[in-house]
Amino acid sequence: MVRVGILGAAGYTGGELIRLLINHPEVEIVFANSESNAGNKVYDVHEGLMGDTELVFTSEMPFDQVDVVFFCFGHGKSEAFLKEHSIPANVKIIDLAQDFRIKGDHDYVYGLPEIHKEEIAKCQHLANPGCFATCIQLGLLPLAKAGLLTKDIAVNAITGSTGAGQKPSATTHFSWRDNNFSVYKLFTHQHLHEICQTLNELKPAEAPHVVDTLDEGYEAEGVTVDFIPYRGDFARGIFCTEVVTLNQCPVENDIVALYKNFYEGAAFTHYSDKALDLKQVVNTNKGLVHVDVFGRKVVITSMIDNLLKGAVGQAVQNMNIMFGLDERAGLNLKASAF
Amino acid sequence: MVRVGILGAAGYTGGELIRLLINHPEVEIVFANSESNAGNKVYDVHEGLMGDTELVFTSEMPFDQVDVVFFCFGHGKSEAFLKEHSIPANVKIIDLAQDFRIKGDHDYVYGLPEIHKEEIAKCQHLANPGCFATCIQLGLLPLAKAGLLTKDIAVNAITGSTGAGQKPSATTHFSWRDNNFSVYKLFTHQHLHEICQTLNELKPAEAPHVVDTLDEGYEAEGVTVDFIPYRGDFARGIFCTEVVTLNQCPVENDIVALYKNFYEGAAFTHYSDKALDLKQVVNTNKGLVHVDVFGRKVVITSMIDNLLKGAVGQAVQNMNIMFGLDERAGLNLKASAF
Amino acid sequence: MVRVGILGAAGYTGGELIRLLINHPEVEIVFANSESNAGNKVYDVHEGLMGDTELVFTSEMPFDQVDVVFFCFGHGKSEAFLKEHSIPANVKIIDLAQDFRIKGDHDYVYGLPEIHKEEIAKCQHLANPGCFATCIQLGLLPLAKAGLLTKDIAVNAITGSTGAGQKPSATTHFSWRDNNFSVYKLFTHQHLHEICQTLNELKPAEAPHVVDTLDEGYEAEGVTVDFIPYRGDFARGIFCTEVVTLNQCPVENDIVALYKNFYEGAAFTHYSDKALDLKQVVNTNKGLVHVDVFGRKVVITSMIDNLLKGAVGQAVQNMNIMFGLDERAGLNLKASAF
Amino acid sequence: MVRVGILGAAGYTGGELIRLLINHPEVEIVFANSESNAGNKVYDVHEGLMGDTELVFTSEMPFDQVDVVFFCFGHGKSEAFLKEHSIPANVKIIDLAQDFRIKGDHDYVYGLPEIHKEEIAKCQHLANPGCFATCIQLGLLPLAKAGLLTKDIAVNAITGSTGAGQKPSATTHFSWRDNNFSVYKLFTHQHLHEICQTLNELKPAEAPHVVDTLDEGYEAEGVTVDFIPYRGDFARGIFCTEVVTLNQCPVENDIVALYKNFYEGAAFTHYSDKALDLKQVVNTNKGLVHVDVFGRKVVITSMIDNLLKGAVGQAVQNMNIMFGLDERAGLNLKASAF
Repeated sequence: MVRVGILGAAGYTGGELIRLLINHPEVEIVFANSESNAGNKVYDVHEGLMGDTELVFTSEMPFDQVDVVFFCFGHGKSEAFLKEHSIPANVKIIDLAQDFRIKGDHDYVYGLPEIHKEEIAKCQHLANPGCFATCIQLGLLPLAKAGLLTKDIAVNAITGSTGAGQKPSATTHFSWRDNNFSVYKLFTHQHLHEICQTLNELKPAEAPHVVDTLDEGYEAEGVTVDFIPYRGDFARGIFCTEVVTLNQCPVENDIVALYKNFYEGAAFTHYSDKALDLKQVVNTNKGLVHVDVFGRKVVITSMIDNLLKGAVGQAVQNMNIMFGLDERAGLNLKASAF
Repeated sequence: MVRVGILGAAGYTGGELIRLLINHPEVEIVFANSESNAGNKVYDVHEGLMGDTELVFTSEMPFDQVDVVFFCFGHGKSEAFLKEHSIPANVKIIDLAQDFRIKGDHDYVYGLPEIHKEEIAKCQHLANPGCFATCIQLGLLPLAKAGLLTKDIAVNAITGSTGAGQKPSATTHFSWRDNNFSVYKLFTHQHLHEICQTLNELKPAEAPHVVDTLDEGYEAEGVTVDFIPYRGDFARGIFCTEVVTLNQCPVENDIVALYKNFYEGAAFTHYSDKALDLKQVVNTNKGLVHVDVFGRKVVITSMIDNLLKGAVGQAVQNMNIMFGLDERAGLNLKASAF
Repeated sequence: MVRVGILGAAGYTGGELIRLLINHPEVEIVFANSESNAGNKVYDVHEGLMGDTELVFTSEMPFDQVDVVFFCFGHGKSEAFLKEHSIPANVKIIDLAQDFRIKGDHDYVYGLPEIHKEEIAKCQHLANPGCFATCIQLGLLPLAKAGLLTKDIAVNAITGSTGAGQKPSATTHFSWRDNNFSVYKLFTHQHLHEICQTLNELKPAEAPHVVDTLDEGYEAEGVTVDFIPYRGDFARGIFCTEVVTLNQCPVENDIVALYKNFYEGAAFTHYSDKALDLKQVVNTNKGLVHVDVFGRKVVITSMIDNLLKGAVGQAVQNMNIMFGLDERAGLNLKASAF
Repeated sequence: MVRVGILGAAGYTGGELIRLLINHPEVEIVFANSESNAGNKVYDVHEGLMGDTELVFTSEMPFDQVDVVFFCFGHGKSEAFLKEHSIPANVKIIDLAQDFRIKGDHDYVYGLPEIHKEEIAKCQHLANPGCFATCIQLGLLPLAKAGLLTKDIAVNAITGSTGAGQKPSATTHFSWRDNNFSVYKLFTHQHLHEICQTLNELKPAEAPHVVDTLDEGYEAEGVTVDFIPYRGDFARGIFCTEVVTLNQCPVENDIVALYKNFYEGAAFTHYSDKALDLKQVVNTNKGLVHVDVFGRKVVITSMIDNLLKGAVGQAVQNMNIMFGLDERAGLNLKASAF
């Protein structure tokens, strides 16, 4: 059994992580840390857990009793936490925030199993990818690796309200969001950093560099990911289209084969021969991808559940890989479908 | 032209009132008061008004230039405002809050046109009914007047999220409310006061008194309105059922005739021969009522748009009556239907 | 391993059953029968199964290779099927339709585990309860057994659109149902039969009989279940309130204790000390129940997922009991929560 | 008073047209034709009209008593109808279907008032634009006229379910569509024809031709409108983004000024300085447009209500122009906002 500690356990992702881990056959939750909820039952804070667990929040952090710690803090707090607390070297860390996703002066591996499975298996510290970033990368990885990203990429991605977190706000007010639709952070979403990092890492040396439009001095030249995020009026899921213009008209079957081969061994990401709709992945850890070709343009549809494959589901998948467990352990979730 | 001033114009009901009044053929908005938004365009605060009006919020309150003032404050603030400000005696007041709905040491008329049209026409000060209260009363008035409310009344009413106001909260968070359903304040909703007041006012002398379950010392004896409010996952509207048990089995047609006659002259409340669905009234000032009979039990369905017939639409209807205008002026609203 | 055959496997409940059974640790699906889809992959028909199973529909029905058959037909077809086909006596049958729910000239046990666990464990043929019926009974069982149902019972129950089945219709059209609300079959829903059967079976001999308002000659006298079903604008779940008027004012704690004791050993039905909201049970096999007391009136809130505890989840629970498995096997579902 | 006849009055757009026209100050509805509903009250078929009109459907078509006829048929039926029926030359025709939108052997004017107001004022026969086509054109017209459409245009447009019409189908089933999201007809939507026709008509001679990707022999070269339509889980409205890559980096203010000037005199289409959300236009006849600039890329957001500005609202606007009425007559609709 993998002994697990959870920091930020009373938050949004903390709750979803507990919902997963209580049914994981190889996991024991040793502590669910929350200063403000210490002593409260987990099911009093997180919906849907009554009758499933008698787990109680604790203000303690007994790192010596666990094999892995999940950081379910808000963005920017992981780094701060590590400066103030000492976690034993043998305890693995899985960070759900964006603090260590960009390579730098740290040893965190970017946890996208579709391309980094071997590094993940060996790593001690893992940075779990962002939700938009995961979905968009799943759509672009095969073309990136094949060196076909040679022109600007039009990315449109619609997210559910759970992507905005737990705190009530004007744009998550039901009266506003119900039957509404809007854009935000167009061309400037922070996930562009990790997307560009991966695309450049994966591409053949001769393929052109992908320019990060968030970087200073950007002037809209070079290959760019033109990313427009939308707020949808649904709770869970991210639905993306990515349009890539190739240098020449491809054969549709070749592109489909490229995708099928790329995801052949993936535990949760699959190529679908049919057009997609979001509820096929909601409440599962899956990524589904579909491709259409028009002249020189390849139109990819990709989708995930933002809280699962886009957050804690992928974190558990990474934990499974890090501990040599079956990659699907604890993640055979019933699709809600309706 | 009726010259109108609006207090609390930057709030929820203030916005909906402006949306109505800018198209009212007999109204001129003289001022839309908001301390915090003074100088801002109204369409910058209230959705859907761009291109319709260049009205600007003001911090002033020139009462001498208006014929009527609408109070769009939160509950409890109308009374406080009147203590601190002096409004000329010739300026009429329409208060949308609950401060003066219950009879007492004041001259406010309870503005339910279906029963108080004559008093409204003559009054200087008007208390606009609550949203649940309006919908439930429309369902019960004919039976009350006929003295048929002789046993407990089971009332179930589902409200949209706009009933909860503008301020974001846990139960109006889209991620929570979307596809969700819940109860609140069961048997203890504050609108019971005005409902009971009306039912007792309207009933024949010999019919039993309706007991207000919110009053101290209540022990569930006597005729009571057993009111269960629900939070629905829609934005606008209130849908009610009221089950009344008669002393004897009635003839269904007699009950239907009672309702049809009662609402024959009503400008916005109609009896429908067919079963109802909420979107028939959404975005209109209508009340629709339908009746079924089973043995001794009469099951009434009643529904309104909570922001219109349940708030500002009814307020404008009252204004029309108070100023001798066509009762429907400015209220011939296109039903949204979908 | 329990070897399972599914009839009507391409239908709505058939799909949800497959979604459950592919993850059930003690089950092997031997055949998923569908004449019209024979040869098609299950994931081409049922959303959310891509990557989870390569199961293919078959037109065959090898009853000699299975231990149990699930009937996922529409109502009325189970009886017809049995007249035309011979199922070996040693093969158990779980019927999800209403054909055998009412006692009569057959040996089907009514499969509500909260009251019939022993009979279920021994039975060969099982009639799985209806969705509304399950939810309403969970709310009323403790009072019924205690003999406290002595006056009319006001039941209001809101169902999601999946309760209306797969076939598109006017009242399941998104343009109509979105943000809409309506009633149907008020006082005449067919589930009243099984509800009344249970309440009368469970009550002490001296307690008054519950009259089935659907029976001929009903005149609204006696204890009745006054059931108003509503169509909610959500996809999954049933949310009920039941108001029971007692002969005397009870002590609230006594009523709460009655409920807690009644459901103490239940695998999926729990008493909640806090008010309920529907998404606590959506995508799970749980029933949650809560009680408030006002004077002589007991207000119960009960809720389930209509497709799981209200249909196939309860069917699998019953199968577990019939085969001596852990009652929760295959039913430790992650709550969707959002 | 303009005397109006409506063909196809029992259909979807027929109903919305009646909802508008009964409140139009200069219109008298002479006949609302429907073979199958002849004799039925209009409010028995179309939601939201009870109490507003006693209009009855008729099987007759007294063309000699009207000034204008609205064709509310499905696509393709207008042409067939005209072959079988004779409409007096002095009776104007407004066709809501796509039959005459593309120029050819007919005298129908394409009724987009933002560019064709003079032709509309003089025309006898009018083809009302499509919903997607209207929204996308409003986003692109200023750039097209300025000759700035010199590279491929990425268009993403999300439509509500009412765009799919009245007939229930798999993709309008509430259980499927609720909280779901999907694409359809990507790069092949039929509205591309009218969009390309307008863009080429409006552009300066020297600007490159826009290629219609639906035309035979298309090979993805030339300026194209790369249009991806999405099904949103809301009932009303279309929300679009259009990304146009210019030859050089523009000054943002210049682009904004281009848009403001272009729409300065428009009755219903406005430039918004702030980011848009769909409910600002729902239940109104407005088009709202907003622009952002990133390097050489111009990102336009445009939106309308698909049933109003995208169908019958625009048809009434065109009627107003054709008869010399105030362009906004009957179209000062209260925004629903929530």
